[in-house]
Amino acid sequence: MLHRLFPVFEWGRGYDRESFTSDLVAAIVVTIMLVPQGMAYAMLAGLPPQVGLYGAMLPLVIYALLGSSRQLAVGPVAVVALMTAAAAGEVAAQGTPGYHLAALVIAFLSGAILLALGLLRLGFLANFLSHPVISGFITAAGILIAGSQLRHLTGIEMGGSTLPALVTSLASGIGGLHLPTLALSAAVLGFLFWARSGLAPLMRRVGLGAKAATLVARGALLLAVAVSTAAVAALGLGTAGVAIVGEIPRGMPALSLPLAEPGMMTALAVPALMIAIVGYVESVSIAQTLAARRRQKIDVDRELVALGAANLGASATSAMPVTGGLSRSIVNFDAGARTPAAGAMTALGVGLAVLLFTPLMHFLPRATLAAIIIVAVASLLDLRALPRIWAYSRADGAAMAATIGVTLLLGVEPGLAAGVGLSLLMHLYRTSRPHVAIVGQVPGTEHFRNVERHAVVTDPEILSIRIDESLYFPNARFLEDCVMEQVAGNPRLRHVVLMFPAVNAVDASALESLETINRMLADSDVRLHLSEVKGPVMDRLRRSHFLDALTGEVHLTQFDALRALAPGLAEHTRAAARHETALRPG
Amino acid sequence: MLHRLFPVFEWGRGYDRESFTSDLVAAIVVTIMLVPQGMAYAMLAGLPPQVGLYGAMLPLVIYALLGSSRQLAVGPVAVVALMTAAAAGEVAAQGTPGYHLAALVIAFLSGAILLALGLLRLGFLANFLSHPVISGFITAAGILIAGSQLRHLTGIEMGGSTLPALVTSLASGIGGLHLPTLALSAAVLGFLFWARSGLAPLMRRVGLGAKAATLVARGALLLAVAVSTAAVAALGLGTAGVAIVGEIPRGMPALSLPLAEPGMMTALAVPALMIAIVGYVESVSIAQTLAARRRQKIDVDRELVALGAANLGASATSAMPVTGGLSRSIVNFDAGARTPAAGAMTALGVGLAVLLFTPLMHFLPRATLAAIIIVAVASLLDLRALPRIWAYSRADGAAMAATIGVTLLLGVEPGLAAGVGLSLLMHLYRTSRPHVAIVGQVPGTEHFRNVERHAVVTDPEILSIRIDESLYFPNARFLEDCVMEQVAGNPRLRHVVLMFPAVNAVDASALESLETINRMLADSDVRLHLSEVKGPVMDRLRRSHFLDALTGEVHLTQFDALRALAPGLAEHTRAAARHETALRPG
Repeated sequence: MLHRLFPVFEWGRGYDRESFTSDLVAAIVVTIMLVPQGMAYAMLAGLPPQVGLYGAMLPLVIYALLGSSRQLAVGPVAVVALMTAAAAGEVAAQGTPGYHLAALVIAFLSGAILLALGLLRLGFLANFLSHPVISGFITAAGILIAGSQLRHLTGIEMGGSTLPALVTSLASGIGGLHLPTLALSAAVLGFLFWARSGLAPLMRRVGLGAKAATLVARGALLLAVAVSTAAVAALGLGTAGVAIVGEIPRGMPALSLPLAEPGMMTALAVPALMIAIVGYVESVSIAQTLAARRRQKIDVDRELVALGAANLGASATSAMPVTGGLSRSIVNFDAGARTPAAGAMTALGVGLAVLLFTPLMHFLPRATLAAIIIVAVASLLDLRALPRIWAYSRADGAAMAATIGVTLLLGVEPGLAAGVGLSLLMHLYRTSRPHVAIVGQVPGTEHFRNVERHAVVTDPEILSIRIDESLYFPNARFLEDCVMEQVAGNPRLRHVVLMFPAVNAVDASALESLETINRMLADSDVRLHLSEVKGPVMDRLRRSHFLDALTGEVHLTQFDALRALAPGLAEHTRAAARHETALRPG
Repeated sequence: MLHRLFPVFEWGRGYDRESFTSDLVAAIVVTIMLVPQGMAYAMLAGLPPQVGLYGAMLPLVIYALLGSSRQLAVGPVAVVALMTAAAAGEVAAQGTPGYHLAALVIAFLSGAILLALGLLRLGFLANFLSHPVISGFITAAGILIAGSQLRHLTGIEMGGSTLPALVTSLASGIGGLHLPTLALSAAVLGFLFWARSGLAPLMRRVGLGAKAATLVARGALLLAVAVSTAAVAALGLGTAGVAIVGEIPRGMPALSLPLAEPGMMTALAVPALMIAIVGYVESVSIAQTLAARRRQKIDVDRELVALGAANLGASATSAMPVTGGLSRSIVNFDAGARTPAAGAMTALGVGLAVLLFTPLMHFLPRATLAAIIIVAVASLLDLRALPRIWAYSRADGAAMAATIGVTLLLGVEPGLAAGVGLSLLMHLYRTSRPHVAIVGQVPGTEHFRNVERHAVVTDPEILSIRIDESLYFPNARFLEDCVMEQVAGNPRLRHVVLMFPAVNAVDASALESLETINRMLADSDVRLHLSEVKGPVMDRLRRSHFLDALTGEVHLTQFDALRALAPGLAEHTRAAARHETALRPG
């Protein structure tokens, strides 16, 4: 029982010294990345730096206990931080206690939503987000994130949560450009971008093994933090106007519940839902990709529960919302993490940093944190995806372009809503027009084919329509239209046969449409028949009064139907065909 | 060209004296119903009585010119009136000029929405509303409408737009019960309900023909209005506290545009959309049912345009929102209406009434109008639909129950939103789990069947999965999960073959899932193959890089795939099977 609730009892049984060593190395590497990233993402979310560090503690332990991925690295991530800023900014001003409370409420609500979805096994809801929409959204969010960091990189007083607002405020504030800040940013950015490809080879040239070199290269963030902090402290750049992080409270966060007025809860419910879904979709794709490499399995409902509980933990420890992050998860995997214990050890590492090292971070320049964010989101931008998807499918390309456009112009929430709305509309449009074919008998056989593609025999008094799709409410009306269109202006018609070989389900809307068709045909003196109805569909139809009201019969096969309705024709064409092959190609 | 825009040029060509006579009789009968109903529905919408009469003038002429139905009777209807009251009540108080303006804005916005949907051919959007949801919504709206009229029937001061609010205000205001009003209501209600079944037989007993008797029975509303008005005037009940209609402005409405501030437009946009869709869905079902009886055709996009223009006309003539109404359309049809000219003549009739008879309506008791509403909505209530639909399908029954419950408890807009949301969720849930089967070779044949239902041969190194559904974003993730679940813990596996005989489309999300599956399988040293890919799907896949990246091959048939991957097995089982019949039943 316990091991079904807590996967830890599963992987914990075989836990040995070797696993411990692997996990420990991974945890150290991830901690070194996570401490600066946590502070940076807190800054991106408009929150004090410690809030990002708190997000790298209890939530990781909770995920380690509940999560089904063995390598996913949970914590603050850039896109969720941006969305948190957008949502919290709607209900309070940055820097006020209300703003921090709003972030905690968002963590609480998204946690509760994810938990509920997981317990109710509603993970399929994430399917609302099509790949082009999520990809376009992440790209646009990445651009907005980069834009929002220009402020810290340049010292220019600017704001705005949309591209036009960012550009306008950049233009009007350009006079406030602070050259020392810009120089520092350029140096850190240059180093970090170089380090992504250049540091590991350098380490190998100075004599490290391939694996050690890669591990050391992961310390680039820490190096940038240490050197830039030391430089600011030594050169007194803080007093020269380079913005620094300043005092970070030492010690553990207090446990508390985010008690907000109902008004704030209501206002943040929809943003929290969006944050929950975006975070979940991103996280579960990462977890799945990593698990596949070791032929392990992800349980999507358990992931919902684990991420939900992790966010509830975040909200109870003054931390920002969390989810699985791409870059740290890959680092965790590459560094050899074998079990979720690596995540718990990472939390321990961050805890030690909070207890011991926060005084050292006083002079950490905000420009360095901004540079860390820029480097992280640079990997999110996938501008070539749009032309590629457009070339593949106009509809998907349009949904992606709309998502990007609306996100950049109006912000993250309208952008995501537009993308989801559009893809649902397109899906509905597609499914509202199922493929139907008017069929006729292939002469000499018991087969029936599309009259438009084959030389088949039909009877002017009988219309046979094959429906190549299950019948449910999005296409129920289409069926009515389709049948009645065929009947209109066709005075010789006496029988309509609907062929159901591909109909796996008939919902209540479609049943009502069938009843309407039956009634409307009866008003026109046309009888309605069904043929080739599958067993489960027939069972269900028997639970309604439709079969009693049906003016015609349910025939086992279409050939039976034709034999009953036009016996001469059916047999005649079968006999005749012994001497001919009437099937045209195509 | 003109006759494509205006159907009037089509039916107008064959218009003769006989058609004219038929239309005229129908128009007179409908006018007699429409004058009291129009005033009653205006009262239901919280508007002055003339607003309902105006809604029965220009909009009818516009629909007659543009609509594709020959018998639909357009005008104010009960459910739309209730929804208008709910929406307008959100932005202004009843009785204020702002409230009337809000109603005009709603007519304008729903008109514009319907027109746009029609011109863009987006009529499929109405498919959002499943039959159980619309049926539950209409029933619940009917109950709320009846509840809202208790006030006029009893003289009790009460309000509220939800069932609990109505019950509470009825309980607290019960002391204000006005017995003369109650007596009048009881008399009118009793007469109208009796008239529905009893008046026509009575007329025949006094010597009228069957048809004439039915026509006269349609005058029951007029009779109730005339007698109760005369009684109130003669007995001075108006001064005794029986609420009367009072002064109705004589003459035509002024033409004007509903100029509201942007704030009001924004606030009313979503309600207007809901009113537009509900009105359209109701109207088009009526039109379709009537058209079918004469083997005529309804053009759904033209209906959108016609109803949209009619509502724009309403908004320009101080009238309330309109749509096709069930009871009047049936009366119109039964009375012999042959062309939309009947609608135009009805408008003329109502216009004459407005010009000549409004002074006579001064003493018309509001209780009579309320009774007319009650009789009209009684036919909307279909309480037996819920158990019937529940018995047929639990999911549809739940959606219907939720729609009824939320509408009664929280009001019309949340109720409709809940119903639409729930049915979309259920649809997404259903389509997110397409049917897939792991297949094996039927020994001795080139056929492949579900391993769970047939005795088939499989190779432990090859996994063949048949997907019985097109692949698009709602089921893209399912495919990933499904494939990776099969691969996890199956170390002998070397090849996965996806059979695509039933896949009609692969959207960009599904393409990305296929790419992910290909990559994840490659990470596990498993090759991915496709088989039986349809032509259009293959054409589209060629436009992407998927086929280059594919680790395996695309095979024409599943048998080809097996022959390529496990040549011994494929041929062996074919040879062996000449001596056995391995297909188990089931």
